[in-house]
Amino acid sequence: TKKYCYSKIKKLLPKHNLVQIQAGESKKNIETCSNIWEHFTRLNLDRHSLVINIGGGVIGDMGGFCAATYKRGIDFIQIPTTLLSQVDASVGGKLGIDFQAFKNHIGVFQLPNCVIIDPLFLQTLPKNELRSGFAEVIKHCLIKDKEMWQIIRKKDFENQNFEKLIEHSVKIKKEITESDPTEKGLRKILNFGHTIGHAVETFYLGTENHLLHGEAIAVGMVCEAYLSNKLKMISQVELNQIEEFIFSIYGKVDIKEGDIDQIIALTLHDKKNKGNAVRFSLLNGIGNCNFDIAITKTDMKKALNYYNY
Amino acid sequence: TKKYCYSKIKKLLPKHNLVQIQAGESKKNIETCSNIWEHFTRLNLDRHSLVINIGGGVIGDMGGFCAATYKRGIDFIQIPTTLLSQVDASVGGKLGIDFQAFKNHIGVFQLPNCVIIDPLFLQTLPKNELRSGFAEVIKHCLIKDKEMWQIIRKKDFENQNFEKLIEHSVKIKKEITESDPTEKGLRKILNFGHTIGHAVETFYLGTENHLLHGEAIAVGMVCEAYLSNKLKMISQVELNQIEEFIFSIYGKVDIKEGDIDQIIALTLHDKKNKGNAVRFSLLNGIGNCNFDIAITKTDMKKALNYYNY
Repeated sequence: TKKYCYSKIKKLLPKHNLVQIQAGESKKNIETCSNIWEHFTRLNLDRHSLVINIGGGVIGDMGGFCAATYKRGIDFIQIPTTLLSQVDASVGGKLGIDFQAFKNHIGVFQLPNCVIIDPLFLQTLPKNELRSGFAEVIKHCLIKDKEMWQIIRKKDFENQNFEKLIEHSVKIKKEITESDPTEKGLRKILNFGHTIGHAVETFYLGTENHLLHGEAIAVGMVCEAYLSNKLKMISQVELNQIEEFIFSIYGKVDIKEGDIDQIIALTLHDKKNKGNAVRFSLLNGIGNCNFDIAITKTDMKKALNYYNY
Repeated sequence: TKKYCYSKIKKLLPKHNLVQIQAGESKKNIETCSNIWEHFTRLNLDRHSLVINIGGGVIGDMGGFCAATYKRGIDFIQIPTTLLSQVDASVGGKLGIDFQAFKNHIGVFQLPNCVIIDPLFLQTLPKNELRSGFAEVIKHCLIKDKEMWQIIRKKDFENQNFEKLIEHSVKIKKEITESDPTEKGLRKILNFGHTIGHAVETFYLGTENHLLHGEAIAVGMVCEAYLSNKLKMISQVELNQIEEFIFSIYGKVDIKEGDIDQIIALTLHDKKNKGNAVRFSLLNGIGNCNFDIAITKTDMKKALNYYNY
């Protein structure tokens, strides 16, 4: 980020101090926050200071959280530099860090003062990172725009119009999150693919089979499309279309049968849950999504087995 | 708290789990938060869980902060058990922890779902703790209610009507904080006595001359009443009345002349500041208070020397 992104905009920024942290989801923790708060303190930042977060989702989530809690909150703006953070993390005000094995376990809701998205940054983004972000683009189409789904599913990944799709995704996510900022209801539809997806991501975190966020969400979307079909909310044809498109881009993750129970156990910690029931957001026709649908462990297992075979 | 307060209300609470932490301001840090978040996680608390904070300001501030950041915020109620937390910390939604040497450096603004105040808890409160809380009662009178100031200043500490004064203080603080929840303007008047008071508190933190919050604020109020008088905002008679009443209750802290520069340096980190100017909230007549008044280091030094002699 420093080499390819910060260098491009450095001159456009007002006088500032650079606080740099190591890359990677594994650094998105309370120790790094302490480190950032220490920098803020040493730089004597006051309530009138501005934090500019330049980077991917980790930087936006954690830098935003640090700003939102430093002296009970100072101004911050987000300049997301990955496709994933441009179409997802930078919109909607979710900030936070991982805690122990749990993703985004500690955090707050707080909108930034401003978000600046420049597709220019994508030119230097590794392909697997671009692909990871594209999973959220797919999700936005599946839950909210059938027409756009028909457009993207007929194109190869390389031929997608990313600039247009960023705008499209941001618009959808913005509308949904503004109508339900703290996820009491409708906002939950953004979690399509994420209940199983997050569990898969968490399970492989720190292993050699480590998945990028979008890669795990791709697994989750196939599983949860299966569940949507099982509940007769989407047709077999629709399920097949989703599967086909996702497998063509992401391939298939090799999930060991012996790991499935542990993955399912991890879904219990999903923030959407109430007590011990696991609540899913499932497609109700393509371009439409329902939330708070209770799914049993048995059906989750079937979904992961379906993905596997 | 567990012995004298929790025991009294345990039976009245619904089925619950107890999370206990060690007493003391020195535990109000990010390590204790991690410990509390770990408990929440192990207990499988979800977004529909409720945290009940029973204790003084440390518990309310830190327990509230942990609840407000766990899974991006779950419900919490405050049951303050000290006079200080009843008349101050539990009202207005300031939550947080200390960071390194800085008080309440990390936190958020978030109102609890409910605050339950029972003066019964004061019966078992040590006298120095009661006296500490009373400093905020004095402050509320000085900044907002001249009549009540005339009533309290004519009574010994032992003869004050605490039940009535709690209600009085909560009403004043509630009005002020509701009109300016995030301290952009008027709320700053609650900081009367706190710019120098906090610095004094921080300076002696962890030394053998350690002061309770209210004891430090008592020092701060004398210094800042001196500054109010120096700017001709209160009369000499009023200054003398304030001094006399405060010294009669709190005595005089022995501030070494050599420590004054370090105490003044600590005021620079006060959250009210803008850049390097230190902004005070000063009395403008008793029962009235102005904010954002820039004061030089020289005048701060004079104020602390005035207190000393």
